[in-house]
Amino acid sequence: MSLPHVASPEDRTSALAAVHDDVARSAVTPSTSGAGAGPRAWLDDWDAAHGMSVVEKPLEQLDGWAFDDDGAALRHRSGGFFSIVGLDVHLSDAPVAHWQQPIIDQPEVGILGFLVTRVDGVLRVLMQAKNEPGNPRGSQLSPTVQATRSNYLGLHGGRPVPYLEHFRRRTDESALADVRQSEHGSWFIAKRNRNMIVEVADDLEVIDGFAWFTLADVYRALREPVMVNMDARTVLACMPFAGVGPGDPPGAEHDAVGSSLARSFSGRHGSVHSTPDLLAAVTDARVSLDLSRRQVSLSGLTGWERRDGRITHRTGAYFDVLGVEVSCSGREVGAWDQPMIAGSAGAVAAFLAADVDGVLHVLLRLRSEAGFVDVVELGPTVQCAPANYAHLPDGARPRFLDEVLDAADGPDSDDVLFDSSLAEEGGRFHSTTIRYLVVHTHAFEEPPGYRWLTLAQLGDLVHHSHYVSVQARTLLLAAQSVLTLGRAAHRVAS
Amino acid sequence: MSLPHVASPEDRTSALAAVHDDVARSAVTPSTSGAGAGPRAWLDDWDAAHGMSVVEKPLEQLDGWAFDDDGAALRHRSGGFFSIVGLDVHLSDAPVAHWQQPIIDQPEVGILGFLVTRVDGVLRVLMQAKNEPGNPRGSQLSPTVQATRSNYLGLHGGRPVPYLEHFRRRTDESALADVRQSEHGSWFIAKRNRNMIVEVADDLEVIDGFAWFTLADVYRALREPVMVNMDARTVLACMPFAGVGPGDPPGAEHDAVGSSLARSFSGRHGSVHSTPDLLAAVTDARVSLDLSRRQVSLSGLTGWERRDGRITHRTGAYFDVLGVEVSCSGREVGAWDQPMIAGSAGAVAAFLAADVDGVLHVLLRLRSEAGFVDVVELGPTVQCAPANYAHLPDGARPRFLDEVLDAADGPDSDDVLFDSSLAEEGGRFHSTTIRYLVVHTHAFEEPPGYRWLTLAQLGDLVHHSHYVSVQARTLLLAAQSVLTLGRAAHRVAS
Repeated sequence: MSLPHVASPEDRTSALAAVHDDVARSAVTPSTSGAGAGPRAWLDDWDAAHGMSVVEKPLEQLDGWAFDDDGAALRHRSGGFFSIVGLDVHLSDAPVAHWQQPIIDQPEVGILGFLVTRVDGVLRVLMQAKNEPGNPRGSQLSPTVQATRSNYLGLHGGRPVPYLEHFRRRTDESALADVRQSEHGSWFIAKRNRNMIVEVADDLEVIDGFAWFTLADVYRALREPVMVNMDARTVLACMPFAGVGPGDPPGAEHDAVGSSLARSFSGRHGSVHSTPDLLAAVTDARVSLDLSRRQVSLSGLTGWERRDGRITHRTGAYFDVLGVEVSCSGREVGAWDQPMIAGSAGAVAAFLAADVDGVLHVLLRLRSEAGFVDVVELGPTVQCAPANYAHLPDGARPRFLDEVLDAADGPDSDDVLFDSSLAEEGGRFHSTTIRYLVVHTHAFEEPPGYRWLTLAQLGDLVHHSHYVSVQARTLLLAAQSVLTLGRAAHRVAS
Repeated sequence: MSLPHVASPEDRTSALAAVHDDVARSAVTPSTSGAGAGPRAWLDDWDAAHGMSVVEKPLEQLDGWAFDDDGAALRHRSGGFFSIVGLDVHLSDAPVAHWQQPIIDQPEVGILGFLVTRVDGVLRVLMQAKNEPGNPRGSQLSPTVQATRSNYLGLHGGRPVPYLEHFRRRTDESALADVRQSEHGSWFIAKRNRNMIVEVADDLEVIDGFAWFTLADVYRALREPVMVNMDARTVLACMPFAGVGPGDPPGAEHDAVGSSLARSFSGRHGSVHSTPDLLAAVTDARVSLDLSRRQVSLSGLTGWERRDGRITHRTGAYFDVLGVEVSCSGREVGAWDQPMIAGSAGAVAAFLAADVDGVLHVLLRLRSEAGFVDVVELGPTVQCAPANYAHLPDGARPRFLDEVLDAADGPDSDDVLFDSSLAEEGGRFHSTTIRYLVVHTHAFEEPPGYRWLTLAQLGDLVHHSHYVSVQARTLLLAAQSVLTLGRAAHRVAS
């Protein structure tokens, strides 16, 4: 029949298939234009012309910020941006069942968005060279738009956010992804950002500080330390991705792991758990776990103290809240002060990966973090800063941590599929990096609270909110890079 | 490789396929045992031995219930069960953008669960004959377990809930579904119940008031007025269901609509929208719609008054809050009082269904209700009590309502695929029925805020929370019945 307003299923289905094809070609096609000499040179050029100076400053002296009179919270005088508050947490089934901590309260839903275009069958993403105060070394590849609501409503008096209009007035047809995702549940209360991928025509004007890249460029950059920022990683993990084609992936080693990985992304092969099984396990964990949290005063948090202009744990573990004074010439405004969280050094987030009858599976942990919107998400097999466990009983040492570290630092590097140190969000976290690892294992098991998933299953779940944690989303993108570049970061020339 | 703790993907995939097969056979196999003379006779027998008397009683006189001193809320003296509170709602994009109303506040997550067993390749569900004070006529087919947290913690001093232990200590492997779903967003604040389907061995002892039925029995009962209760409908809608087989469905008419419907459930055919497209539309609606609600005092709600022992709208529209005195001999306790909501007469919930290139699609509306947990869910094409629009401007009349009613009550009954009046939850709603319709349309469109979905897409979404409204879940089950029984309620002998 004739359909005046609706495309036929075949047209629509082939539209999605065409996106998959253009994404696949993007994954195996390095740029020959746009960034010219490649992302590293492009970022360096940008930083040479746009300096940023970041100096630590005591929290009490931050311009525009103040503790409440009773010390209950640290807030911006405008009421915008975010606050640092205290949180009291009870969580059954954790190494420590009750604790208090400082945490970021930022209730607004911001926008993290990529503009993409498809030319000659290759999808390209519009990257921004963006420096942020927490970045360990200068600018990183960042989404086209990365804006809190305070940002884009101009609460801080900054300049308009470039390209924002494409995300605030999108048409349904143009979105390849639009999903609210959580961020670090240990450091944010119920934070969510809208992860968006919006398609535009290829005649878009590209302004200074922005450039088109292919996914192949991104994957390569992902293997260099702190070059692809966290917001870019989480959004790109939401890209519709179904592998790179029926044959062996170009660039990947033609071995059993490569073939197994390709089958894991295709979605046409069996999985250890059906998706209804997985979703039932998530519901069960959310209902069964007893997580209660309440906001308490920042002053007098058990175990924490204000010292030398910071808020620190008495053991020195976990993280610090510190202040910085920022001045720069390439951002919305030239200078500002703000508090940040500085995470522990040596943090690790890892997937164990195993071949199950020819289909690679990764091991997700049903993980609860104090700030999660809905109690539990699927996180990496291992996620921790080992130093934080030094003062806890032996039994608290995270499961699978030693297996991951032994493989990562051991002689048999064939088992290391991905290994790269990447920075967490530079607008909130100060020089906070995580070593992301995907480690192949031969002897595996599935303890309670863990589930083996194919990468196609994980790729389906990221289109929904609050299933896949921000660290697991980075690892999903990392697994895509293994599919196209082959295993192990250190085998790729940087 | 050998997998000590994990079944192989093939085994697991075939496990899900086996469930689909046993569900398909259940859908086309009427019981020859269990309920004996069929569900109607079984329910009548039960009611003959277990009377329930329900008499209206002024809200002010309900035993165990009291208004706060300032009239702000009506609560149970135990603090359990639920309360009636006031709500102030601002909702952009609604016929009325601001209003106040009474609403049920029941923050607990209850359990609605079916035990199922599979014998000789046929799945059976353990139905309970359950009378509830709001039921228009005696007992209905109800889930094995239907328990609020107050219920199963024994807050009202009742007897233990039979079979509850299978749901409170389930093993992952045994759950065919486990998902928290919303209920009526206009009458509940953020209510969620856990919808569970748990498989047990076939040697389960079946106690008085319970019996095994096939899905074919359920579909047939669904076509009789108020025989399958709401909780049974919402849980059974979450059953993994992939159609009834490759050929023409037994019992269905062998026409184009039947074949189109079979393809709609199979999931192997194209859909007008890809699932990522649909999910992006939901996110966009949730972020774009401005819904704000705050609890206010029940006394002094604009437009509402306490009169004759009820709370009513001054126009007589929408719903009443009324009290009942219940006494019975077949329930957990013998007698109690409680408030209930009595919805408007003449309510309608309907899917428009259209064939798109050989695949039946149904039209969902991105619908916001004041009490939804996350602003928007996919609801029926039409959902309203037409009388509620009598005092509103003409433009407020719900879109597609006339098209549905013209088809339902017009001469061309071939377009009516399903037509049955079913009762909403009898524990909270007093004699509140909705006429559920699935109407085939030839001339269709997709206005903003509506989306055409296949039934396979809808069936995938019900495994996640908060996408498919409680009314749309009943209509999904209704569509399953059309697949196996053919079109139109009045063609089936009852």
